[in-house]
Amino acid sequence: MTELTVFFFRHGIAVERETFAGSESDRPLTAKGEKKTQQIAQRLLNLGIEAELILASPLVRARQTAEILLEVGIAPELIISDLLAPSGSLQEWLRWLSHWRQEHEGALMAVGHEPNLSHWTELLICGKALGHIELKKAGIIGLKIPETDPLGNSQLFWLTSPKLLLNSRGLA
Amino acid sequence: MTELTVFFFRHGIAVERETFAGSESDRPLTAKGEKKTQQIAQRLLNLGIEAELILASPLVRARQTAEILLEVGIAPELIISDLLAPSGSLQEWLRWLSHWRQEHEGALMAVGHEPNLSHWTELLICGKALGHIELKKAGIIGLKIPETDPLGNSQLFWLTSPKLLLNSRGLA
Repeated sequence: MTELTVFFFRHGIAVERETFAGSESDRPLTAKGEKKTQQIAQRLLNLGIEAELILASPLVRARQTAEILLEVGIAPELIISDLLAPSGSLQEWLRWLSHWRQEHEGALMAVGHEPNLSHWTELLICGKALGHIELKKAGIIGLKIPETDPLGNSQLFWLTSPKLLLNSRGLA
Repeated sequence: MTELTVFFFRHGIAVERETFAGSESDRPLTAKGEKKTQQIAQRLLNLGIEAELILASPLVRARQTAEILLEVGIAPELIISDLLAPSGSLQEWLRWLSHWRQEHEGALMAVGHEPNLSHWTELLICGKALGHIELKKAGIIGLKIPETDPLGNSQLFWLTSPKLLLNSRGLA
């Protein structure tokens, strides 16, 4: 049974809902959010993280995050998809994934939102969503997802916040 | 309800069972294992990780690992305890923890073995041990453990291997 490596990446720090005049889906990253996401993307590259594809939520803050990952060179391709929007369902994403992996061998980087990403992780590793996994903005989760019965049968090998990945110099 | 921060740290790379003449509990870290554990300990310090106490399994490879963490300055104190030996039980450790936290405010660093540490983590966050969390040698897990009903109610905020924490220069 082949295991697929999937990284869940939460969008970077965005302009607060209260202070943004436009629609919720258009909230962009702040300048600090962009900078921090760039630092994290560069660090991921240095750690040898690469993917065959970045799949990202269409919301501006997620799209901008995905574009930074693409520019740094984490993956050669980016697809924007409703599957990773806040309204996206794990079941539908898993159906997409099961098709995608037929034709691809590399890892997938999925850029989206909370609470989805941590709930999906809990469903994948524990079989239920308990709200006990904490994914910070610009944080990453690493999973190995089996071909059959992924719910409750996937492996978690990585979970980190930016703070616990960059050293103090990196965060300056 | 106060949450306690607990880090689980797996001992570094030890001499293989097959090539060691002494007893299983005396297997020491290899030279590479020592060096890598030192690099990780230094990195943890740079990331701002500190604990009030290191509690470690009495097996040589875990004790050596704990001594490295102590020397680097992760915590001011080390206690060697059977609670973290391969035969240790989560229930007994939780009883110890519930007393310890009455008198202490800082984090705890617990140095031990697999599969215990990842199974304990699963019991703490999922309520059951599934074998779906992967903790590498010299890898670390970060948990927030509530005062009451910790099983199935704890938070996971960190899980990393040394490889995903040190950059390529650090691993040289």
